Amino acid sequence: ARLEAVLSIGTHVIPHPRKVETGGEDAFFVGGDGGGVFAIADGVSGWAEKNVNPALFSRELMANSSTFIKDEEVSQDPQILLMKAHAATSSIGSATVIVAMLEKTGTLKIASVGDCGLKVIRKGQVMFSTCPQEHYFDCPYQLSSEAIGQTSQDALVCTVNLMEGDMIVSGSDGFFDNIFDQEILGVINESLGTDEAAKALAELARKHSVDVTFDSPYSMEARSRGFDVPWWKKLLGAKLVGGKMDDITVIVAQVKTVVIPDDEGSGVELEKVGGEQLAAAGVASTEQNE
Amino acid sequence: ARLEAVLSIGTHVIPHPRKVETGGEDAFFVGGDGGGVFAIADGVSGWAEKNVNPALFSRELMANSSTFIKDEEVSQDPQILLMKAHAATSSIGSATVIVAMLEKTGTLKIASVGDCGLKVIRKGQVMFSTCPQEHYFDCPYQLSSEAIGQTSQDALVCTVNLMEGDMIVSGSDGFFDNIFDQEILGVINESLGTDEAAKALAELARKHSVDVTFDSPYSMEARSRGFDVPWWKKLLGAKLVGGKMDDITVIVAQVKTVVIPDDEGSGVELEKVGGEQLAAAGVASTEQNE
Repeated sequence: ARLEAVLSIGTHVIPHPRKVETGGEDAFFVGGDGGGVFAIADGVSGWAEKNVNPALFSRELMANSSTFIKDEEVSQDPQILLMKAHAATSSIGSATVIVAMLEKTGTLKIASVGDCGLKVIRKGQVMFSTCPQEHYFDCPYQLSSEAIGQTSQDALVCTVNLMEGDMIVSGSDGFFDNIFDQEILGVINESLGTDEAAKALAELARKHSVDVTFDSPYSMEARSRGFDVPWWKKLLGAKLVGGKMDDITVIVAQVKTVVIPDDEGSGVELEKVGGEQLAAAGVASTEQNE
Repeated sequence: ARLEAVLSIGTHVIPHPRKVETGGEDAFFVGGDGGGVFAIADGVSGWAEKNVNPALFSRELMANSSTFIKDEEVSQDPQILLMKAHAATSSIGSATVIVAMLEKTGTLKIASVGDCGLKVIRKGQVMFSTCPQEHYFDCPYQLSSEAIGQTSQDALVCTVNLMEGDMIVSGSDGFFDNIFDQEILGVINESLGTDEAAKALAELARKHSVDVTFDSPYSMEARSRGFDVPWWKKLLGAKLVGGKMDDITVIVAQVKTVVIPDDEGSGVELEKVGGEQLAAAGVASTEQNE
């Protein structure tokens, strides 16, 4: 018998308050390949000004990712997955994107373009975090239908060795711009299931996102870049605060270890993991949750 | 011919103001193995209260690391290097430690126990950063001579794919507690050599460390954990600020690409990199710089 690492994955999406009817422009997919895989794409909303639906590119990119993950060549390499999925995407638009794949040995492979994020929580602290990439404030690196955009070659590509019990929290910028690490740790420490934790995290970020008095990570970052309220408001003691209204996607994954008897074929073990989303591979857009 | 990645490495150490004569308790080593390797150990100063010189453990750990890196088994794996170097260290004491090894393919392998740090800077932004591990504020994970400490199994182990031109900034907590990312980026953007950049960064952190009015990363973190000045000082408008006096070790490494002709043996290329510290492998303690 041998031990294999698998992810138990929970997801939750809350669209931008003004995009509830269309489901927003985030998309994601979750799969059981290897020890488990997930990805998030956040369609860049500026395309709406050109009469392009920003959700088309992110949704097609995720659909293509869920197809190509079945290829042996790409199932080992998140950067190659991004390259193939990007090349196959014909919609006009652009998106930030993060892909994470767990190998059965416990190594998590990550590729990220832009400002989706991923943190690993171990023993109550953040022990790993991706960094966002951007051209300037609020303009992230992005995979695009246009040549001016970034490619998979511009991705941050990294791995982190995980242990049983580690929790992964990944999300679009609409999540991380509206929640602090201490708040994430607070929810994760409640030992909810991954679906419940994803829901609780998304709802907390959503609450902050519509709170004009909340001094969010986004407003703190904006001030540190020199943005502020007009000078006459400053004289009255005002400062730039508030959440950031945006689509909010949260994926919470827990690393579990399963015992694989020697006489069993590979792949079958994934169905043993139970009621959570691991076996339920598929593509999802924001329409699914709200 | 093929391309190989190599590090050009610069270092600078400034001991704690009250530890100048003994050289402080940080230690480091730099080597040319693979595409380049470096490590930093920060001796935990609490051992002085037990009449143990806190520098002994960190210096021996680095000396042992520089020995074991020559073994083929450990030259590929920073976690195994830590395990072997730790096991071979007989001094009483403990230390935080970080090891980074560049493979010739451009993959940087990192193992870290505690609050030494490493950041990768690409195109003017921090695109990768380790996270500190701690038991509680100011009590980091540490390799120890005592069973109560952590082991290499507790290390954060991760990799990041680097590109030509990427800059690595690594240091002890005495560095990162006294300097903000924006300041690091400012120095790195000046395009100094790696030795000059390491010196400039260490001196800036040193200046902040003795400035009782500087609102350092350390004082901001302390306040966020609920530490503050006494209530009667608070009534007078005071708040907990100031740098943190500590040993300061900085390593700056630049990723370069060298062309290896097909008919050449491996290893020789390292001498081509030039005047910086790559070929000058060896162990150093803080005595070397000041």
